[in-house]
Amino acid sequence: MSIIKGFHHLTACVSGAQEDVDFYVQLLGQSLVKKTVLLDGEEPVYHLYYGNAQGDAGTLVTSFPFRQKGVKGRRGSGQIKVINYSVPKGSLDFWRKRFSAKGVIFQDEVAERFGELRQRFQHPCGIEFDLVASDRDARAPCLASDIPPEFAIRGIHSITLSLREVAESVVFMQDALQFSYAGESGPYHRFETAGGTPGTIVEFLHEPDRLQGSSIYGEGTIHHVAFAVDNVEQQMVIKERLMSMGYIDTSESVNRNYFRSMYFKMPGGVMFEAATTDIGFAIDEEPGHFGADFQLPPWLRERKQELLARLEPITV
Amino acid sequence: MSIIKGFHHLTACVSGAQEDVDFYVQLLGQSLVKKTVLLDGEEPVYHLYYGNAQGDAGTLVTSFPFRQKGVKGRRGSGQIKVINYSVPKGSLDFWRKRFSAKGVIFQDEVAERFGELRQRFQHPCGIEFDLVASDRDARAPCLASDIPPEFAIRGIHSITLSLREVAESVVFMQDALQFSYAGESGPYHRFETAGGTPGTIVEFLHEPDRLQGSSIYGEGTIHHVAFAVDNVEQQMVIKERLMSMGYIDTSESVNRNYFRSMYFKMPGGVMFEAATTDIGFAIDEEPGHFGADFQLPPWLRERKQELLARLEPITV
Repeated sequence: MSIIKGFHHLTACVSGAQEDVDFYVQLLGQSLVKKTVLLDGEEPVYHLYYGNAQGDAGTLVTSFPFRQKGVKGRRGSGQIKVINYSVPKGSLDFWRKRFSAKGVIFQDEVAERFGELRQRFQHPCGIEFDLVASDRDARAPCLASDIPPEFAIRGIHSITLSLREVAESVVFMQDALQFSYAGESGPYHRFETAGGTPGTIVEFLHEPDRLQGSSIYGEGTIHHVAFAVDNVEQQMVIKERLMSMGYIDTSESVNRNYFRSMYFKMPGGVMFEAATTDIGFAIDEEPGHFGADFQLPPWLRERKQELLARLEPITV
Repeated sequence: MSIIKGFHHLTACVSGAQEDVDFYVQLLGQSLVKKTVLLDGEEPVYHLYYGNAQGDAGTLVTSFPFRQKGVKGRRGSGQIKVINYSVPKGSLDFWRKRFSAKGVIFQDEVAERFGELRQRFQHPCGIEFDLVASDRDARAPCLASDIPPEFAIRGIHSITLSLREVAESVVFMQDALQFSYAGESGPYHRFETAGGTPGTIVEFLHEPDRLQGSSIYGEGTIHHVAFAVDNVEQQMVIKERLMSMGYIDTSESVNRNYFRSMYFKMPGGVMFEAATTDIGFAIDEEPGHFGADFQLPPWLRERKQELLARLEPITV
């Protein structure tokens, strides 16, 4: 049994908050699962969680709208380059028409890799996404009023990392994180955990000449990927293993209110996280009402009105 | 006042333990300050501390003799490439004769950089060292019977990092760690903290085509550099700053018995540490007797005979 079950969430630093809500909710049919704030630093920045209505791990993509803070990131190697969402086979035409109708930037040609068709499109802040068509995804569709369930997103399919070099990172995925190597396709390397279905796949894109991107919180970049683990005990199993190998920049288990996080940088420079699935979003809102109100962790709750007043108003 | 005072220690994974003792103590005139074990992982590996007799921060270079464990590292970019020791001006001839007499591999030519003459030589495991001649080092000499004090090592001068790219790391040194940029010399960039005297200098060597080295504990590589901070409170000031910028792979304050350590990876991939100066080596041996016996932290002390029996015997 793998300690890492697949993805927990992906986190990107985007531009404005409202255009981000419009992208995930109106365009992609994701639910706003939680509206809260980034817990690092003094100045308030939203932390917006999107996914299926239940907020299941592996469906969650989260945003820090950084335009407000004025810190720009630089896209490049050593970063997650593409967020890949899983959709059913046969749905790409629906999405191409939808992108076209809604003025979304998308690639003319459907691509194919590892036997899967995929459609590239862009977030308004410039971050790239693929929809990957798969018949191996048993997860329920993310329900939205204007998207037929047979075309709807199922959750995260995979992530594509841009790496100048892959040698050390290939070893790391297997020895440190116990992913299995699933094959190579041109400059792409594929790794899987826990069965290899959508939601458990990491890809490397070897880009030897691509300049290093920033690893700060900065507009226009995907900051980290969180893998799902059961609880703090399982985080500590990974931490012990990483420390004993020499990856000693592994954080403690940090309280992120809805889960606990442990962070570490893989050799290629991408920020990884192990996040626990044992807490969840029902601690401050009833299921069926996730994302309804602005939520803060207990230690910030008395500052709610002050923080909210300093943030861009958004409507779903 | 800088939070980072200069170096605390540098740590390398070397080959055999006895040849390492011979290199630092017999050849370089360093004192064995502490003989203990690596605190990560199950299998015992020595942790040998060398420096001046008082074990002062900024003189300490420490070794994990990894031949015993059979894990090889790979030298490359994203690593510390050279450990630079500080010696008085006019002493390089003494050292060249000494290297020659003792069969040490050293470079034919004395080099010059940033107005300082420097002599390259090699540790038996292949790690590179420079002796840098400086008249700005007020620290007391490391005393040894066969090295005249006027030629003796004063402590660490600087470290030289090998980086494929420097842009993100140049910003990091200044914004995250508050070093000042001290200039450029060909492919070298120099940074200083707390006055810029020997013991406070970090150099980048820009090697755009050099393949990435390993970041595991592995024979033949310099694993990390520890900078000196006063105490845990100062570590936490740095941790808060790093976290708020997005460098969230910053460890908690780890108990290393003689100091507390907080680890984080800089953008170029090198493992950095902030180590506290408020504990020290007198907790288990009297000053004047540092390194005399095999020492273990309280939580391992009852296993002393078992652990020692599994380690290569060494004599100073």
